[in-house]
Amino acid sequence: MDQLLLWLAVMFVAARVGAELAERLRQPAVVGEILAGILVGPALLGWVPAHEEAIEALAELGVIFLLFTVGLETNLTEMRRVGGTATAVAFGGVVLPFVLGWGLMQLVGRDDPEALFVGTAMVATSVGVTARVLRDRGKLSSKEARIILGAAVVDDVLALLLLAVVSGAALGSFSWQSAALLAAEALAFVMILATLGRRTLRQVLPFLSQLRVTEPVLGAAIAIALLLAASAARVGLAAIVGAFLAGVIVAEAGDEHELEEKFHPLTAFLVPFFFVHVGLLVEVEPLTTGAGVALVTAITLLALIGKFVGGGLAAVRLGPRSAAIVGVGMAPRGEVGIIVASLGLSLGVIGAELYGVVVMMSLLTTLVAPPLLVLLYRR
Amino acid sequence: MDQLLLWLAVMFVAARVGAELAERLRQPAVVGEILAGILVGPALLGWVPAHEEAIEALAELGVIFLLFTVGLETNLTEMRRVGGTATAVAFGGVVLPFVLGWGLMQLVGRDDPEALFVGTAMVATSVGVTARVLRDRGKLSSKEARIILGAAVVDDVLALLLLAVVSGAALGSFSWQSAALLAAEALAFVMILATLGRRTLRQVLPFLSQLRVTEPVLGAAIAIALLLAASAARVGLAAIVGAFLAGVIVAEAGDEHELEEKFHPLTAFLVPFFFVHVGLLVEVEPLTTGAGVALVTAITLLALIGKFVGGGLAAVRLGPRSAAIVGVGMAPRGEVGIIVASLGLSLGVIGAELYGVVVMMSLLTTLVAPPLLVLLYRR
Repeated sequence: MDQLLLWLAVMFVAARVGAELAERLRQPAVVGEILAGILVGPALLGWVPAHEEAIEALAELGVIFLLFTVGLETNLTEMRRVGGTATAVAFGGVVLPFVLGWGLMQLVGRDDPEALFVGTAMVATSVGVTARVLRDRGKLSSKEARIILGAAVVDDVLALLLLAVVSGAALGSFSWQSAALLAAEALAFVMILATLGRRTLRQVLPFLSQLRVTEPVLGAAIAIALLLAASAARVGLAAIVGAFLAGVIVAEAGDEHELEEKFHPLTAFLVPFFFVHVGLLVEVEPLTTGAGVALVTAITLLALIGKFVGGGLAAVRLGPRSAAIVGVGMAPRGEVGIIVASLGLSLGVIGAELYGVVVMMSLLTTLVAPPLLVLLYRR
Repeated sequence: MDQLLLWLAVMFVAARVGAELAERLRQPAVVGEILAGILVGPALLGWVPAHEEAIEALAELGVIFLLFTVGLETNLTEMRRVGGTATAVAFGGVVLPFVLGWGLMQLVGRDDPEALFVGTAMVATSVGVTARVLRDRGKLSSKEARIILGAAVVDDVLALLLLAVVSGAALGSFSWQSAALLAAEALAFVMILATLGRRTLRQVLPFLSQLRVTEPVLGAAIAIALLLAASAARVGLAAIVGAFLAGVIVAEAGDEHELEEKFHPLTAFLVPFFFVHVGLLVEVEPLTTGAGVALVTAITLLALIGKFVGGGLAAVRLGPRSAAIVGVGMAPRGEVGIIVASLGLSLGVIGAELYGVVVMMSLLTTLVAPPLLVLLYRR
């Protein structure tokens, strides 16, 4: 526990210093935080370990509350209005990266299960970093932001299905019935939240003011965020999708401005742990050989092109700049790509070397997106 | 991770419900939170495990930020004014419980190392619960509160020394030199903080407003709290003593009212995990035999009497009511008693049965103190 406190202190201070330096170089703060994680993590200084349960838990809580507050600032009616485009962006951004990743693996002579897993890891979008950049720049209510957030929800459902199919195939236990059940569960979760959950909450929230505990509204909001994040994870979706939807329905039901204010200190404390942790996960191993560097470069470029073209084309009727913002905003794979790779590793489908390559791809796409987004918004 | 999120959601919701019920029964909220922990923990429903690294980390962060904010509300000059009384209270509250615990163990025929360890476990004060009750009732600036908080710092230094002596003796590796070194380190830590640390901070804090990161003051305060908590743990003191002192010197240097406001959401989220976790630790084993119940009852009564008489007598010149508040306020052993017992268990000095007895004593003293404090303040 004493050791852990020191790690947390190092992570937090490194995040603050990294964010400050990034801001002074006119870069997004989040890039400074990820680089701070690379610096203090196993890749360089080795002051903080990458796989420590308590650190992972704080990182997870950080991104959960980040997406919850992003949900608070998201208007459901306006989200619905871009629903068609968001769905198209999600589909485009799933199909093309999968095909590109799978194709590259076939080209370099990997076997089928490996190619399928790498393709799947290239599908996942980690919307945390994009949400953070959009929020820091006050762009959360822009049309592009709504499309990206909506597409991230659909994307997560699609990625869940694809992962079920691919890992079922790898284990030889695939069945269309179980895949259909999974899809039905995930869709039902989202639908029930957006209808019944929303209505129930609207009736329950006014009673909170009659409670005698301190901070009744904040407490209820935290409870809802945790419960829906845990429930989303239960049906196989990302916890952050549950947290995001929780934020959306809480904002509909109550006074979201007061809540945003109160969540600010919570996210100021927890969110840096998420982004520093992303940096901790860097694996230098694949970068020590020429072939490794070539593979990382190729797969990262395809991952960027896949989302940029696949997602961007689906939003092209908004104009080239908006399409580019959407395409870049969907690019970060972050911890989701790493989770898929870890699953492949633990199933014995991909080896340690390919795992390291996918991890680097996930991190590089995450590091590249924020400055590109800032550049696109600056034009 | 998915499982962990569910545990955290259950803990948080249980804490809110427990606090609400306690308030309605005109009991301190913290009692409801501890009882909620007993309910959902291994002792009863078994929904949440007791020894889970991530839960322990959140609980620790909760009590660290609680004591930091208590420190924010504590005036150093006024603390110094009651320094003599606080030191006397600490000494009285260390000597008498140790002698009583050691004596009882001798009486029931336990061997010397066992008696020494149980005596030491009875010395530790866990000031978190008292600080919480005093804060919830707006009594942190009372003279009794300052004496209790000052005594808790001295108490922790004394308990650290006693533990070093006792465990050194148990391992046959005791030396006066190492004990003296430990004492010097701990005292130097407190002294350096209160002088040099305070002066440095006063010069550094004004520069924070020139930073470009969001929430520069809150971020710096969190960093200082984590760093000093980790440093205190490094020199062998309790992390919360470091956090408390951090709060005191930050309050001296900056605008503590704005900070108190900002820390409120953080403590609203984290602190319940600490008190629910206290409840999770309950061991029902010792209560299944008549002899066990008798031993738990005897040791708990002596633990209460030891602090009440030993600590209270030292404050008797403030009047009987104030002396009683100080004596009761020092009584909770909380997680500190449990940590001493765990160390004894891991060194093989005490057995599982005596460990369970000490755990129950720690929890019962923690549960009894809040309602007694409320009663004393109501009179």
